[in-house]
Amino acid sequence: MRLSQFHLHTSKEVPADAEIVSHKLMLKAGMIRKLASGLYTWTPLGLRVLRKVERAVREEMDAAGAIEMLMPSVQPRELWEETGRWEKFGGQLLKIQDRKDAWYCYGPTHEEVVTDFARNELASYKQLPVCFYQIQTKFRDEIRPRFGVMRSREFLMKDAYSFHLSDEDLDRQYRVMYDAYSRIFTRLGLGFRAVFADTGAIGGSASHEFHVLADSGEDAIAYAIDGNGAEGSGYAANVELAEAIAPGERAAATETMRKVETPTQKTCEAVAGLLGVDLQRTVKSVALMTADAAAPAFVLALVRGDHVVNEIKLAKLDGMAGYRAATEAEILEHLGSTPGFLGPVAPKRAITVIADRSVAAMADFVVGANEPGFHLAGVNWGRDLPEPERVADIRNVVAGDLSPDGSGTLGIARGIEVGHIFQLGRQYAAAMGCTVLDDSGKAATPTMGCYGIGVSRIVAAAIEQNHDDNGIAWPEAMAPWQVAVCVINPKKDAAVSDAAAALYRELADAGLDVVLDDRGLRPGAMFADIELIGIPHRVVVSERGLAAGTFEYRHRRASEAENLERAALEQRLGLAGQA
Amino acid sequence: MRLSQFHLHTSKEVPADAEIVSHKLMLKAGMIRKLASGLYTWTPLGLRVLRKVERAVREEMDAAGAIEMLMPSVQPRELWEETGRWEKFGGQLLKIQDRKDAWYCYGPTHEEVVTDFARNELASYKQLPVCFYQIQTKFRDEIRPRFGVMRSREFLMKDAYSFHLSDEDLDRQYRVMYDAYSRIFTRLGLGFRAVFADTGAIGGSASHEFHVLADSGEDAIAYAIDGNGAEGSGYAANVELAEAIAPGERAAATETMRKVETPTQKTCEAVAGLLGVDLQRTVKSVALMTADAAAPAFVLALVRGDHVVNEIKLAKLDGMAGYRAATEAEILEHLGSTPGFLGPVAPKRAITVIADRSVAAMADFVVGANEPGFHLAGVNWGRDLPEPERVADIRNVVAGDLSPDGSGTLGIARGIEVGHIFQLGRQYAAAMGCTVLDDSGKAATPTMGCYGIGVSRIVAAAIEQNHDDNGIAWPEAMAPWQVAVCVINPKKDAAVSDAAAALYRELADAGLDVVLDDRGLRPGAMFADIELIGIPHRVVVSERGLAAGTFEYRHRRASEAENLERAALEQRLGLAGQA
Repeated sequence: MRLSQFHLHTSKEVPADAEIVSHKLMLKAGMIRKLASGLYTWTPLGLRVLRKVERAVREEMDAAGAIEMLMPSVQPRELWEETGRWEKFGGQLLKIQDRKDAWYCYGPTHEEVVTDFARNELASYKQLPVCFYQIQTKFRDEIRPRFGVMRSREFLMKDAYSFHLSDEDLDRQYRVMYDAYSRIFTRLGLGFRAVFADTGAIGGSASHEFHVLADSGEDAIAYAIDGNGAEGSGYAANVELAEAIAPGERAAATETMRKVETPTQKTCEAVAGLLGVDLQRTVKSVALMTADAAAPAFVLALVRGDHVVNEIKLAKLDGMAGYRAATEAEILEHLGSTPGFLGPVAPKRAITVIADRSVAAMADFVVGANEPGFHLAGVNWGRDLPEPERVADIRNVVAGDLSPDGSGTLGIARGIEVGHIFQLGRQYAAAMGCTVLDDSGKAATPTMGCYGIGVSRIVAAAIEQNHDDNGIAWPEAMAPWQVAVCVINPKKDAAVSDAAAALYRELADAGLDVVLDDRGLRPGAMFADIELIGIPHRVVVSERGLAAGTFEYRHRRASEAENLERAALEQRLGLAGQA
Repeated sequence: MRLSQFHLHTSKEVPADAEIVSHKLMLKAGMIRKLASGLYTWTPLGLRVLRKVERAVREEMDAAGAIEMLMPSVQPRELWEETGRWEKFGGQLLKIQDRKDAWYCYGPTHEEVVTDFARNELASYKQLPVCFYQIQTKFRDEIRPRFGVMRSREFLMKDAYSFHLSDEDLDRQYRVMYDAYSRIFTRLGLGFRAVFADTGAIGGSASHEFHVLADSGEDAIAYAIDGNGAEGSGYAANVELAEAIAPGERAAATETMRKVETPTQKTCEAVAGLLGVDLQRTVKSVALMTADAAAPAFVLALVRGDHVVNEIKLAKLDGMAGYRAATEAEILEHLGSTPGFLGPVAPKRAITVIADRSVAAMADFVVGANEPGFHLAGVNWGRDLPEPERVADIRNVVAGDLSPDGSGTLGIARGIEVGHIFQLGRQYAAAMGCTVLDDSGKAATPTMGCYGIGVSRIVAAAIEQNHDDNGIAWPEAMAPWQVAVCVINPKKDAAVSDAAAALYRELADAGLDVVLDDRGLRPGAMFADIELIGIPHRVVVSERGLAAGTFEYRHRRASEAENLERAALEQRLGLAGQA
């Protein structure tokens, strides 16, 4: 491609409504243009990147044995009513009425359509397992679209759906997809992590999210690191789902319990500061009421002062589903104190104590005295209060926690979710009456997996991970072009122009994706564009270079340019065989 | 691809709602499945064909210098109001309200969006000319979707839009697109014709439709054929737009005018039958009133008895815009007769006669006598009535007419419109305030071209053109696979299975798109499938063949199979270099 015959339109201005770096850079580089809220046009430059992602996804899905098809974007209401999602899906479902007043939606996902397809197409177990996929435009009517294509309403998605007779076979397919996803992100040159995920509203039994790592990511991920701080066993999970294990054995008591005056100190931080003890020596007491309508129970949940209660974990404990915060009246009734000075020692009435594993392992700790203006220090289990009747994991993990898989400790990273794989189970097939005959001739409801990748979102996530002050720094596999051949003064000197054109053709013939910048811009403006749009390799052809028999080469991530002879240049460009 | 790992699902049943052969065959072959009215899922088999068409379109558009981009499918109402099409486009426009009650449509075309893009992106004449295209899903809410993907509501389209400073440059681009379209259909192996077309509702100055020729086509096309009946100069036009030229000089009068009794003969056919003369000797008189509100004029339009009046041509004549049929009262007032016996001789009042060119060249003809029950025969211009004051082309061409470009005669073919190129002119840019600075620094409104191809429709049209009683017979470039390697009894004989797998791999390595039919079906069922889905080359690997050192080869269009040694087989498959 010659840039003079392309439509490149970069801009120096930072658009006012762009909050995150990928959105800003995509607009500055001219990759996308906003049409309306959450609707973006992919310019020729942007589309080149999008198509590279799409191709990588398609090739890896094909290699993994998934079969591509294409379902309509517009879906009839009737299918969504079979699964109950016409109402349940909520406001993100863009509902459409056609000229005959029939209702449809712009598909935000295709479980219903693919299950309808399957119930018509699949008759026998001999047709299973099968995994269908498509790369297709979706619409989710986000209440607040933002961040450009990171959270747009119309977007490009790869969605795959597999059908199996047995749970074991679904497990096998799930692993195949897990590996395919790993290959996709590896091939795209992205730092990523697959993390255990909550299955949330879609339901099902197993689920992993694939996150592109970036400091700006919305999600926190806990992952195992080894003793040297390097990535360890591969364990990774959403911070909210990662298991916090006990930090070790409880130490022996060394202090006696004493009451200390804490007149205005209502938080662990303030108490620790006043007493001059480590925050890790304090215990936070959170007063809750269970949802048992007949006999709601008062619960005191205890976590270490430097930890945060994890409501998801707490709600999963026996009897804790639907719990709520206790009112001041309930607290006063059970503990005899106002909030800020609560603790598990000597409650006024019988209460349930749930201690986090870390709290259960503490000795000589500080808790509220259940008396306004006072805390207790030097408290020890079994001596000053009964051993906790319930010990459980009820907190978020933090960096430095032991990894729950027994390998090293946990680090915390931030990520952007770009892929999600689920074991859906039989709920969709059952709701829609999708069955196949098994090998004994009986109708069996297949179990399903579903596997999504946000193709357009990957582009933005990659920029969040790969940029600097001068713009985007694409991984080679995602760059709009791998190499830019830049001509200095193309109109002034035909020899320079010709040499650049020849180099451009030769590199293209060698299989590189090359662009020739023959626009005739001043070098500064030309280089700024090439850096902004993130081309990995820049080669400058100039009169001076030609005279010296060299090309000026610079990698997008290198701090300086170097003058190279042809053989060395080809080596830098990965054309080793020719160097 | 191994068919055992693909999802092929053919069917023997002809679905009741499928009216045309392509729809029937696409359902029988399992290429598409209906989701709802006008909404089709492309199965893995169908998608393979669709993608081949898409790729051919993309590569030729790229080669022609067009630049791919991707615009949203959902478009805001405000843009459509700028051009007035929010109301004018009619019921095909699928209107959508989002959760914030803002109105959008599912784009049936993208003139508004691309012009909005252009007015933001294009600032200077230096950025022109430019031609953007996309391959994208469109929706038209057809009042009666039918014929499968031939007239579906959701469909895949390639739409391109070009911007130019001058009309001459638009002409140049138009020609480039015309040539690119010709290359696309040639490359796909389709018989097609580019025909002059009416620009219709979209407006603009020049327009060609590209039709895939098929007897089942909805549109009639007139095209030049030479003296041997072969395709001639390349002239082609919609029958309704093709110019009907004069058939030659008028012969001398040989008869005298006589009044003949035609008591019940009110049509040219009936009169010609009664008199025993050729239909071509009779003249049909059509009574019309012009739309001039102040002084509507009575017009008698004359065409030969075997010709059909063309209302489009008639309405384009001076003063004829908005004409209507005359009432019986008006006819009686001007001609003194009831319909069925009308003619231009001796009207009761002054009338305007518009004679078709063929009529003006007639001698000794038959017309109505303006007296119920009578016609006049042996009528001649200048003698029995004045020379016609207006002679014009007001009829549809018929097979055998002289070609208007002076080369040979016209044949009539039927076609399916699959592409359309327009010179839009400046209407969209003007309505939306899209300007660029010209070389003198003044704001200029660019002129536009637009160029559409119905990607999904091509698939159906190709089947209409290429099928037989056994199914589809794809042109090689569109086939889901070029070659099917069929194994007889794959599970019985490992040597046969291995030989087939080896052949499959070798042909694939040689660059052919091959499928291995290793499903283990009985030969009859297997061959029926392969014929139905239209694979051009079938190679059978069997125990007997292996023993003889031959493969059974059959081309989809050949009447018989032949046993070939490897070298001959490779030659048949186009692997000449290896034979």
